[in-house]
This record gives sequence, C-alpha cells and structure tokens, in this order.
Amino acid sequence: MSKPAVILLSGGLDSTTVLAIAKQQGFIPYAMSFDYGQRHRVELEAAKRIAKHFGVVQHSVVQFDLRQIGGSALTTNEPVPKHRSVAEMGSGIPITYVPARNTIFLSFALAWAEVLGAQDIFIGVNALDYSGYPDCRPEYILSYEQMANLATRAGVEGTTRLTIHTPLMAMTKKQIIETGLSLGVDYSLTTSCYDPEESGQPCGQCDACILRNKGFAELNMTDPLVNS
Amino acid sequence: MSKPAVILLSGGLDSTTVLAIAKQQGFIPYAMSFDYGQRHRVELEAAKRIAKHFGVVQHSVVQFDLRQIGGSALTTNEPVPKHRSVAEMGSGIPITYVPARNTIFLSFALAWAEVLGAQDIFIGVNALDYSGYPDCRPEYILSYEQMANLATRAGVEGTTRLTIHTPLMAMTKKQIIETGLSLGVDYSLTTSCYDPEESGQPCGQCDACILRNKGFAELNMTDPLVNS
Repeated sequence: MSKPAVILLSGGLDSTTVLAIAKQQGFIPYAMSFDYGQRHRVELEAAKRIAKHFGVVQHSVVQFDLRQIGGSALTTNEPVPKHRSVAEMGSGIPITYVPARNTIFLSFALAWAEVLGAQDIFIGVNALDYSGYPDCRPEYILSYEQMANLATRAGVEGTTRLTIHTPLMAMTKKQIIETGLSLGVDYSLTTSCYDPEESGQPCGQCDACILRNKGFAELNMTDPLVNS
Repeated sequence: MSKPAVILLSGGLDSTTVLAIAKQQGFIPYAMSFDYGQRHRVELEAAKRIAKHFGVVQHSVVQFDLRQIGGSALTTNEPVPKHRSVAEMGSGIPITYVPARNTIFLSFALAWAEVLGAQDIFIGVNALDYSGYPDCRPEYILSYEQMANLATRAGVEGTTRLTIHTPLMAMTKKQIIETGLSLGVDYSLTTSCYDPEESGQPCGQCDACILRNKGFAELNMTDPLVNS
C-alpha cells in the first residue's frame, strides 16, 4: 500500500514539516535538495541532517548554478532586505524571489518521480505568508500539475496520474509549526534564514527569520534553533 | 522593435535551424545549452561553434547531472538502439527519451527569460519524427506555456505574456533542412548522433543519425557533416 513520493527538502521549517506530513500519510520518502548557488548554503547541511533523521530512502542533492542567471538577492550579491514588517513583505514581489526556482525544482522532482515510478511530489509552498511569490500560488501549482501530466511517459500512456501535494498552502506559520510539533518534528534541525552568519546562526532580521520568529512567538515558544 | 528571445540550442540540426528562424524573425538571440551528463557531449562543442557563428548576444551553458537520475540510454550506460526502421522508431517511447528533460530545459530558459525581460522562448521540438516523445507534443508545449505564464513575476503583475515558439513542430526532417538551407544554415557545424565515436564522428546507425540521413537523402544530398 505504501507508495514512493518525492519530497522537496530545502532544510527549512516548511519543507521539513512537509516531509513529516508525507511520512505520516504513509508515503515512502525520497528527498530532493538543490545546491543552486544560494546565499544560504547552510540550509543544505540542515537538509542532510533532516533527511538522515527522518530515514528517507534516498536523498538526492542536485547541483547547478543559478548565479549565472541571477535576478534575486539569493543568487547575486544584492543585499537581502532586513527589518521589514509583515505588511511590507506582503506588498509586491520581494527581491528574494528567485526567477522560476520552483518550476526548476519541480521539474527535477518530476524527472526523478518518473524514474522511481512515483506518482506523488510534495512541496512546501505557502500562499499566506508570501502572497507575492508567483510560484507559491495555488493556480500555479495546479497548472504545473496539469503540465506534468502531459510531460512524461505516463502522460502518453495514460497509466498513472501525478499529484503535486502542497499541504502547507493555506496554513499560517503558526499552524505549520503546530502541525510539525504534533508529528514530533525537531525544529532545531532546520534553518530558515536567507542571510546566515558564517557560523550558520540566523541573522534574525530577514523576512524568513521574522516570519519564523513570529510563528514561534504566536505559540509562546522561542525558536529551538536559536536556543540550540 | 527587436526583442530578445531565449533559444534552446543543443548543437543539433533542429535547434540550429530554430536559431536561424528566430534570427530571421528579427529576435535578438540568447542561446542556452545544457551539459547534463549526456552521452553525446560532443554536441556541446557544436553548440558553442554555432552560437559563435550566429553571433548570439550570449551563450549560457547550464551544468547539472541527469546521470544521478538516469532512466534513459542517454544518461546511463544502457546501449543506444541501432539500425531501427522509421516504423520501429514510431512505436512507443524509445529508451533515448530522457525523463522530463524538455521540462527541465524550458524551466531554465524561463528563468533566464524572466531575468532578461524576454517574452519569447524557442525550442526545436518536432512531433512528426518522434511522435513517441511525450515532451515533444503540441499539447505538452501549450500546457507548459500556460504554466509558465503563472510562474513568474509577469504572471502576477499581468504585464507581459510569454510565448513558447516551436517552429519545427509540424515539419518533416526534409522540410527542416530545406528551411535551414534557405536561411543559409551550414549543417556541417551541427551534430545529431546519440552515440558518436570518440573522434566526434556520427555512428550512422542510431535513430538520430538515421532520421538525419533520411532527411538529406530525400533532398538528394549527403550530410555535409559526414563529408566535412
């Protein structure tokens, strides 16, 4: 009954929660991460720790360089915005948006799913916190799923149907953390910061840190990463 | 009036013809190639020659390793089929199909197009010769285009509309070569073989060689690559 699923795992709070959800739903987890020239490469170490901790069958790290394309503060030397209010984050597309990143990530996941014979891909996109990210919106994900079902061998043979799962889509950060905690997720393993110190410690001031801290604060908790 | 366009350039006959068509249509060409662990890496040298020959503004070679995903004779040590008839090629999806390859390629092109401000991507897919390739079919391309128009900054802002151009979609190989010749394409610069000799010479026996040779034969020509 258990089916394989490809889970996109950045090493952050959201994707780690998604991995826990996929396991809880009975999927056999194959984790996929990307070393794409991101400013916050420290997340890859977190992804490796988490994949091991969750006992995934395989953890594939795909390497390419989005710095040669640029267009984002995460893939250039452009400074990451700091100290923004949640209202400011919600207005317009932030400079931390990486052009077509989720489309590229999902496309590698699609290739791997086809080879594994998996019909399920999990991605931790969330429309609430970042209403401005084009590739986190439900209409985008639905359209990607439709395309993916034409793109592969199964699309021609009509044998199977691929589903893109987005269990966090409508959750607040607080709800995501609550869900993860109920599944036993150890958030001290995860990292969300866009612009970490050389030591790997979060900056505490970028959008990702602010949203993460807000989530823990709303649960009257402090981030176990910061205390670890 | 001239607009930038991203042209996927493998170094083969088809994509080179597409580059010539895009230039003839007045687009400012940005060529993109992929070093993905393909068996026939010799095509990358061809792509570089062709990009230079056509005077593209920039030629971006994106590197990643599809051998870690596998699933194709082009990205494993599985032998490439030889001596197949055109009828055999048309029945089922050949082992040279690389899972989700065009989806991955188009996704990097989409990222680059977004950063360049380009609204046009050209790809040399062709539904006639390889009716079996899922990601060469018109319904797939149309669906990709719809997805791409939701995936990016322009998709949220509604400012521009991206078009995926497939000028070869309904052409036979003969028609593709005729079109290219009428635009002055020098096909001795291109390579199509899936399994070239170490010298770079085509094997003459794989599907790609057979279709290419058939195209030239139907024009009562010999392949200028073989004679060069």
